[in-house]
Amino acid sequence: MDIEKIKHIKEIAHNGPFHPEDALIYKGSIDKHVKILDYIHEAIEKSGLKDGMTISFHHHFRNGDFIVNMVMDEIAKMGIKNLTLAASSLASCHAPLIEHIKNGVVTHIETSGMRGELAEQISRGLMDFPVVFRSHGGRAAAIEQGDLHIDVAFLGAPSCDPIGNANGYNRDEEGATMCGSLGYAKVDAVYADTVIILTDHIVPYPNAPYAIPAVQVDYIVPVDSVGDPNGIMSGATRYTKDPKELLIAKTAADVIEHSGYLKDGFSMQMGSGGASLATARFLREKMENMGIKAHFALGGITGQIVEMHEAGLIDKILDVQSFDLIAANSLKNNRFHTQIGGRLYAGYNNGGAAVNALDFVILSALEIDTDFNVNVLTGSDGVIRGAIGGHPDTAAGAKMSIVVAPLTRGRIPSIIKKVNTVVTPGSVVDVVVTEQGIAVNPRRTDLIEKLTEAGMKLYTLEELREKAERIVGEPAPIKYLDNIVGVVMYRDNTVIDVIHQIDEG
Amino acid sequence: MDIEKIKHIKEIAHNGPFHPEDALIYKGSIDKHVKILDYIHEAIEKSGLKDGMTISFHHHFRNGDFIVNMVMDEIAKMGIKNLTLAASSLASCHAPLIEHIKNGVVTHIETSGMRGELAEQISRGLMDFPVVFRSHGGRAAAIEQGDLHIDVAFLGAPSCDPIGNANGYNRDEEGATMCGSLGYAKVDAVYADTVIILTDHIVPYPNAPYAIPAVQVDYIVPVDSVGDPNGIMSGATRYTKDPKELLIAKTAADVIEHSGYLKDGFSMQMGSGGASLATARFLREKMENMGIKAHFALGGITGQIVEMHEAGLIDKILDVQSFDLIAANSLKNNRFHTQIGGRLYAGYNNGGAAVNALDFVILSALEIDTDFNVNVLTGSDGVIRGAIGGHPDTAAGAKMSIVVAPLTRGRIPSIIKKVNTVVTPGSVVDVVVTEQGIAVNPRRTDLIEKLTEAGMKLYTLEELREKAERIVGEPAPIKYLDNIVGVVMYRDNTVIDVIHQIDEG
Repeated sequence: MDIEKIKHIKEIAHNGPFHPEDALIYKGSIDKHVKILDYIHEAIEKSGLKDGMTISFHHHFRNGDFIVNMVMDEIAKMGIKNLTLAASSLASCHAPLIEHIKNGVVTHIETSGMRGELAEQISRGLMDFPVVFRSHGGRAAAIEQGDLHIDVAFLGAPSCDPIGNANGYNRDEEGATMCGSLGYAKVDAVYADTVIILTDHIVPYPNAPYAIPAVQVDYIVPVDSVGDPNGIMSGATRYTKDPKELLIAKTAADVIEHSGYLKDGFSMQMGSGGASLATARFLREKMENMGIKAHFALGGITGQIVEMHEAGLIDKILDVQSFDLIAANSLKNNRFHTQIGGRLYAGYNNGGAAVNALDFVILSALEIDTDFNVNVLTGSDGVIRGAIGGHPDTAAGAKMSIVVAPLTRGRIPSIIKKVNTVVTPGSVVDVVVTEQGIAVNPRRTDLIEKLTEAGMKLYTLEELREKAERIVGEPAPIKYLDNIVGVVMYRDNTVIDVIHQIDEG
Repeated sequence: MDIEKIKHIKEIAHNGPFHPEDALIYKGSIDKHVKILDYIHEAIEKSGLKDGMTISFHHHFRNGDFIVNMVMDEIAKMGIKNLTLAASSLASCHAPLIEHIKNGVVTHIETSGMRGELAEQISRGLMDFPVVFRSHGGRAAAIEQGDLHIDVAFLGAPSCDPIGNANGYNRDEEGATMCGSLGYAKVDAVYADTVIILTDHIVPYPNAPYAIPAVQVDYIVPVDSVGDPNGIMSGATRYTKDPKELLIAKTAADVIEHSGYLKDGFSMQMGSGGASLATARFLREKMENMGIKAHFALGGITGQIVEMHEAGLIDKILDVQSFDLIAANSLKNNRFHTQIGGRLYAGYNNGGAAVNALDFVILSALEIDTDFNVNVLTGSDGVIRGAIGGHPDTAAGAKMSIVVAPLTRGRIPSIIKKVNTVVTPGSVVDVVVTEQGIAVNPRRTDLIEKLTEAGMKLYTLEELREKAERIVGEPAPIKYLDNIVGVVMYRDNTVIDVIHQIDEG
């Protein structure tokens, strides 16, 4: 006889006996588990939010987001102070945060990026503590590993049923607001102590399929609108007509063709920049000519990827963020278009992250230096005006990362001696494509050989930098103060760079 | 200045600095995370399985399952003893477990049910420890709450990619084996210490959508076949032609109509028994005549439910187990047909469990007693020959539970004084429908009033019992020994009954 098993049977016996009257409490009891509250105020109170805690938001409504400002106004009214605001990203529409920072409501920010007046003022020293910038994969890993603990998550959702199954689209009401994937919010929903869904469409149970399951949700607050549909997304991401971007795109597609990675069953991710989107078009022509298809496309998904999928050129789509309405509708209606969360997309601590399965990725850049380091976060004036996004995650994961950029933008060179801010380290950037020439990372002797054999002319980044300098001259160095306004984390959440306050004196 | 925030920034600084060479290890690294092993033996060794541990299996392959026997043979060969085998259910095909029990490899079993020779022998005292029987919802809750801790889960899957995304169907190869939903296995995948997927189809990454995500999977073992397609499921669940069952079904549909629960937007679950399936047919006629539709259908899903969905009569399907090939194919292809796990289906500890949102459920029974208690586990001879399944979960959750049964089966009455084994307590059973009359639980005065008003003749269960007795006589009481061979848990994992060894002396 086995002691443990006897104990187990005894424990079971001690659980009992069954009480028939207890069984009755479950009858139709879903109605008793409705989590809808009338006011945001009430949800905040019930969450136990207190001074010094960390709150979180997602950025799937982009520049049309109403949630952050709505919730912060309410929190400010309640007199709660000294909060850490951890958003998956922030946009220009979040300028009202400036007042909340000045009033001590928000004393620390973690985000993937920021733009507009908020970013301007933070670059000029608005906050005592530096903003922590993380990549999408880095944020997911930080939350999972407890480096970034979220006390209360405020997650906007275009649809939610009364017990909390929430989604980025609406199956029960046509023409309602939608943002498509809620990929980045999925991480917050799993790990936050309290999860509050704010929604403008309460739909009947069950809101299936769901991005966020009811078991992860504590409270639901109906609001008039989660965001401005024009800011969330409007129509399809448009094709560029800029001849410079078209030339870059054509060249990038040629690089892919000759790299050896363009073969049946390949996988890819495309950024949403003009040149990157146009690359998809040229790639499509090549795929049709070669009679091959991709096995999957990953990432921020655009209508172009959906069109290629519907034309049978891409088997499957993994969607962590829908970049336009066509993508959001495809996620809603198409069984091969799967919504994935931030961890599965890019968590560095997850060996099976989808970014590690990419054959290639096309990425944009504000600045590239002669060591292949890329900056997508600060402008040539040192002001924060971008977001890390999945840039380092995909560059590090993909077998080949291609960074596309015009050699110059107006009077500003893209290829310089030293980027203002290192976001993606040169070690994981394989190819840089400009309209004036291609540079391959010297580490990638295999690619250098293949592209040269294919008759493609290659340059060093130093040569491209000199070309740029001949056109627009060497940029004057930015003057910085000692004060650090931002800490830039690599995707493994080690510090890769810091952002200093700009010196305008 | 806030001490916590200063600490946080300092910690971040101490994480660094970033090492560029580390970044390179991720490039195309998905290939390094392939979890495929050559032999089951190897996976068992790596899992660290030791004497006394608990292993688990799912029953989505039903009587066609090859996994349990295949794995147990390997474990027996390796000399591991004294295991607890926790299956979501067992079938006749698992008779080879008898040898493993005799040899001390398996010394305890937890399951929803069992049939055939294994059940016969256990009913006759094969095991020292009683088998613990749990409902599907009870098992999910026991695993989640740690009452049932799984050391190693062996989960068969009709498709799996090299890093572990697994599913009950196959999107990359037409005509491969399928079982549809892997709902019950999802719980094991989340909570088991080690998860091993056994699959007969390794498909390219990403196997999306997936039932079990790669992050939950430790090892993958390719096997020749996970099961016999004829046992897993063959075609559609057939309509009954039995006039007795058709009469029961028609009566049940009339009860539903007059109960007040048949109104636009209702929700339902139907068992897979003959009368239960036929009820769906009569219900469909009523729905078409009334011009109403159901908002969702839940549970074990059959082709009939799928047909009603495709005809626009049911908005959404929540599928924890696919009962036939039509259901499995619908799950694969239909965006409104959602796979759900055991916790979301029926966990009593989850207020938002789908069973609690049911308007009504149609359930079968082996025996019903005059207190409305239902037995679906042991036969009239006291031998185990059934499974609890979701019977008590849905009866307790639904606003109206209807149990359908013929008054007699051959010489065996279905309505008796005291059921051999209480599986579902009478307190949660609302209506009993036989071909000889309807009985409503006296607790449900509302239903008694409505059905009487509609001109339906109601009986007491005592009257129905007497009717049955007039036909087949009173059954002789079963003789039992003191030895307990089974413990029956209610869905909240309290003991509701025990099963004694039958006395054949």
